[in-house]
Amino acid sequence: MAGCGETLYGAKIDRGFWSAFRETAVREGIPYQWRALNDEIEGAEPSHCMHNFRVAAGREQGGFEGCVFQDSDAAKWLEAVAYSLRWHPDPALEAVADGAIQDVVDAQRPDGYMDTYYIVNGLDGRWTNLKDNHELYVAGHMIEAAVAYFQATGKRALLDAVLRLVDHIDGVIGPEDGKLHGYPGHPVIEMALMRLYGVTGDEKHLRLAEYFVRQRGAAPLYFEEEDRKNGNAFYWKDSPFLYQYYQAGIPFMEQADAEGHAVRAMYLYSGAADVARARGDAALADVCRRLWQSTVRRRMYVTGAVGSSEYGESFTFDYDLPNDTVYGETCAAVGLVFFARRMLALEKKGEYADVMERALYNGALSGMQLDGKRFFYVNPLEVQPIACEKDAHKRHVKPERQRWFGCACCPPNIIRLLASLEDYLYTRDGDDIYVHLYAGGSVEFALGEGRVTLVTQTNYPWEGDAAFTVRTDRPAPFALHLRVPGWCARWQLSVNGEAVEADAVDGYACVRRVWEDGDQLALSMDMPVRLVRANPRVREDAGKVAVCRGPLVYCLEDADNGKDLHLARLGDAKGEDFEIEWLPDKLGGIVEVRTDGLRETDAGWGDALYSAALPVRTEPAKLTFVPYYSWANRGVGEMCVWMRR
Amino acid sequence: MAGCGETLYGAKIDRGFWSAFRETAVREGIPYQWRALNDEIEGAEPSHCMHNFRVAAGREQGGFEGCVFQDSDAAKWLEAVAYSLRWHPDPALEAVADGAIQDVVDAQRPDGYMDTYYIVNGLDGRWTNLKDNHELYVAGHMIEAAVAYFQATGKRALLDAVLRLVDHIDGVIGPEDGKLHGYPGHPVIEMALMRLYGVTGDEKHLRLAEYFVRQRGAAPLYFEEEDRKNGNAFYWKDSPFLYQYYQAGIPFMEQADAEGHAVRAMYLYSGAADVARARGDAALADVCRRLWQSTVRRRMYVTGAVGSSEYGESFTFDYDLPNDTVYGETCAAVGLVFFARRMLALEKKGEYADVMERALYNGALSGMQLDGKRFFYVNPLEVQPIACEKDAHKRHVKPERQRWFGCACCPPNIIRLLASLEDYLYTRDGDDIYVHLYAGGSVEFALGEGRVTLVTQTNYPWEGDAAFTVRTDRPAPFALHLRVPGWCARWQLSVNGEAVEADAVDGYACVRRVWEDGDQLALSMDMPVRLVRANPRVREDAGKVAVCRGPLVYCLEDADNGKDLHLARLGDAKGEDFEIEWLPDKLGGIVEVRTDGLRETDAGWGDALYSAALPVRTEPAKLTFVPYYSWANRGVGEMCVWMRR
Repeated sequence: MAGCGETLYGAKIDRGFWSAFRETAVREGIPYQWRALNDEIEGAEPSHCMHNFRVAAGREQGGFEGCVFQDSDAAKWLEAVAYSLRWHPDPALEAVADGAIQDVVDAQRPDGYMDTYYIVNGLDGRWTNLKDNHELYVAGHMIEAAVAYFQATGKRALLDAVLRLVDHIDGVIGPEDGKLHGYPGHPVIEMALMRLYGVTGDEKHLRLAEYFVRQRGAAPLYFEEEDRKNGNAFYWKDSPFLYQYYQAGIPFMEQADAEGHAVRAMYLYSGAADVARARGDAALADVCRRLWQSTVRRRMYVTGAVGSSEYGESFTFDYDLPNDTVYGETCAAVGLVFFARRMLALEKKGEYADVMERALYNGALSGMQLDGKRFFYVNPLEVQPIACEKDAHKRHVKPERQRWFGCACCPPNIIRLLASLEDYLYTRDGDDIYVHLYAGGSVEFALGEGRVTLVTQTNYPWEGDAAFTVRTDRPAPFALHLRVPGWCARWQLSVNGEAVEADAVDGYACVRRVWEDGDQLALSMDMPVRLVRANPRVREDAGKVAVCRGPLVYCLEDADNGKDLHLARLGDAKGEDFEIEWLPDKLGGIVEVRTDGLRETDAGWGDALYSAALPVRTEPAKLTFVPYYSWANRGVGEMCVWMRR
Repeated sequence: MAGCGETLYGAKIDRGFWSAFRETAVREGIPYQWRALNDEIEGAEPSHCMHNFRVAAGREQGGFEGCVFQDSDAAKWLEAVAYSLRWHPDPALEAVADGAIQDVVDAQRPDGYMDTYYIVNGLDGRWTNLKDNHELYVAGHMIEAAVAYFQATGKRALLDAVLRLVDHIDGVIGPEDGKLHGYPGHPVIEMALMRLYGVTGDEKHLRLAEYFVRQRGAAPLYFEEEDRKNGNAFYWKDSPFLYQYYQAGIPFMEQADAEGHAVRAMYLYSGAADVARARGDAALADVCRRLWQSTVRRRMYVTGAVGSSEYGESFTFDYDLPNDTVYGETCAAVGLVFFARRMLALEKKGEYADVMERALYNGALSGMQLDGKRFFYVNPLEVQPIACEKDAHKRHVKPERQRWFGCACCPPNIIRLLASLEDYLYTRDGDDIYVHLYAGGSVEFALGEGRVTLVTQTNYPWEGDAAFTVRTDRPAPFALHLRVPGWCARWQLSVNGEAVEADAVDGYACVRRVWEDGDQLALSMDMPVRLVRANPRVREDAGKVAVCRGPLVYCLEDADNGKDLHLARLGDAKGEDFEIEWLPDKLGGIVEVRTDGLRETDAGWGDALYSAALPVRTEPAKLTFVPYYSWANRGVGEMCVWMRR
């Protein structure tokens, strides 16, 4: 295993595409979500989240309200705040977060237990339903928040609390006699414990994470025994996936297909990849690789969305990728970004970064309104608004983003990802520096006795050029590995303006030299419009193409193209027939893509429903495409990604 | 209103296509279903139906079992038996039916009440939930059975029982003060009462039928009041159709779109058309016409299936005709045949007979296995077996017919239709004789002082010729109106071998003359393979064609074409490029249709899921089509009707 090393922390993103989104997420999203957690958004479903902590802390009267895992929303919000404080210091916000943490910590029981659902409703029931009641899930998110907040601020209050919590969990659950041999119904604590391990170096944290991965699905099946012992219901008993909904139908080491609840799958695979790397466990890494391939080679939408079915928010079967009944939860795309990043750390392969980029720019980013205040849970690739209302199988698909959700996992998830995006750009393995994603900013690192700063200038994803300027106080011998995206067929490297030859190995082009201050490495990627097809085994996309450019998937909206988008056809248009235009005032600034296509008409049909006599009639039509992530920012309307020739 | 007159009863079907199906239905289906009603089919869900009658009659111990409307299965079976006895006398079967009727009659209460659910469970609850508990539905089917059995055998036992039942209903429900101002949650009693009226001439029966049509949906809404008064649940409160599920969301006279539960819709419209005709009510006929157009011009599959969604077994919205998640209940296609026949009686228009034929040969007939012993509830136009198992939205779609159903409305429905099919062929309006469907056999009628027999010879639907020989003992002046199907673009009439000119008026070509004994009228219809397209507003069929010939829709099955049928393409094949062949030993004898088409291959794709570089690769492929009704008679496999060019 030759991964791409360790994250280069401390990178900055200070201009360009992501900078704008991150500003929105931090300036609008974080305050908005704090108000949501405190039930202050008019017209939105109340969260009750902070209320629950204050009740558990004895500060407020009332009962527990909301989902059993409501605490996790606060945790994800705190995690997002922590990331934002690294690059957007805000003492007022930090004070709010400190206050929230105080509520959380004060709600903790003396034995370290931390879940307000059971603290408020009675501790007798705790740890009796690991399958459904999300205590370990909430714990996982709280651990992630604690680590992030400690790393960002140096403050230990929440970190100390989760250390007590983990000790409590370790005392109750594990392989030893007298403990519950269980594991979480909803993974996340695995990768959380691995982050905690990164801070503490405490083998106990790694051991517990590994236990949760390996115990999962082992016979006798813990969840079955737990159901029997505690009389818990098994909601999925008539489903095709049964306990695989919980990623527990078969032992993790035997899993071969991405199955069950997609978010749980992504989180578990991410944690497993962390454990495989920490342990140098090739067999476990093989399982991760197998599940990666199942996910991205047979069960992933072109947008990076995963989870084909609303039923169980789940994977279904190979090449089953319906565009209009898709689930494609925002959290699942975020989870795929997590998984991709960890596979990249395990193994240097451009495919991982390609998928990370695909999910990030498309199926994850689409989860947030451009104003940062509305969110999608479900990210469809084809929408007809009346169907969302009148067809029960599409009622989970919303034609517009919502203010908040009773189960509000997605909004803080996309915010915490955006707020920490600088951690996804660069990794380092000794003298090898890897650039995975292109974003304007910089990163600084020590090299020998010196310090090097790499300044990135790019207008990616609108343009395919990225320039890296090296700032160093002394000659700096290191290699720069630049990712050549899978979508890019022609590219050129130059150093200080002179072309250099380099092959892309495993998706990365490398220039190794002794860099002087001011040296510049430039990557120029051709970024034509691409007409992408799906593997012929994907029924729903047969005969169709998706218009893409760079990492972006584009779509048609009726705001630009009129209704009945299924009648729009590309005809013979090729990639080079498309015109592109930067429109700074449209949808927050986009490169719009246009071409001359066709539109089928119903001329002559009248009220006939079927006919062997009427020919296909088309008329020329200008087709206008906007980036998929930006859809549904202009009111309710139709949208489609895949279109006919 | 110039309809096509009265049914010419006493017609015979004694050879050809339908004869074989009817023999199967009677020889296999009727005995099989009797065993099913008595829980004697191994491996099938038990019916409990006859058990319930015997418990209600005090002959057996036990409770009521099965659906609340379980009695109706016996009624539909008795109705089918009645029809069969008209052309297939069978004293042993008649004795069994007489015994069943004795059970039914003995279960009746002295006040005329007849529903075993309440007789067994307690009469206190009767008439408290017209919305959901199907008492009037069961009554409707019992009336239809009684009329049919009386007409076939002259036996009055069941007829007298239902006359007492109707008097009981009339005493409890109606517009008068002190009665319940209700109507059935599931229509059928409307058309049943109209049939009873046809036998009794009792104005009360017509009045009650009309009341049920007109009261429906009137304010204050009876079902809402009933729910409130009796604490009944309203299952559909979150549905898009609300009380329109029951055809009661708005007054019938204001309805404009086919909405809600498709079978209820078809039955109600049928009863309303009967009432409109009996009353000569032009306004009511207009509503029927409007609902007809909504149904067949915007919401009907090419197979004549109706009901696009499994949720509520319901209509959805205009042009929403998904092929793989369709409901298309067998009963709804049967109901569309009922509706079409009644519209034809209201108004002479070929469209009604075209739809009747379309539903009969395709979406209704597909409900029965060729051996008469297995049945489809849902009739999809595209099936991928793994999806029926792994995709929750398609689990209602079965890739093979089932032995029986807990809710077994469909099997006896298709059997009773087939057993009575001779009543759908010919109608008479004075000296005008109409032929709506072509089937080998004969029909006899009085003309003046003589009797005329019309003998039909045809190999329809395999060939497009139909010859009518007149047998008469004296010169017979009458007009023969032969339907020229909407699918037929070229046809020729000849009398005694000499071509005659005639225009098709409203879909019927007419020859009026004084017929001599032995005169022959021949209709020769060109029957090429037709490549049918759907109105461009039908998204699911965009860019696709359905292969049809005569009244039959054809489909691809993997038994003939291999798996991955979505990869099959017609290419440039035109109707005239198809070869046809009569295969007597295949699927009970079919005309198979074949052409040279294409098959997309995944050559070069490897494990890539998306690519802008890989071209579409096709290879020549022989495509073999079989009639849609015959699909799924060769084991579990893929099927599709609509295919790409």
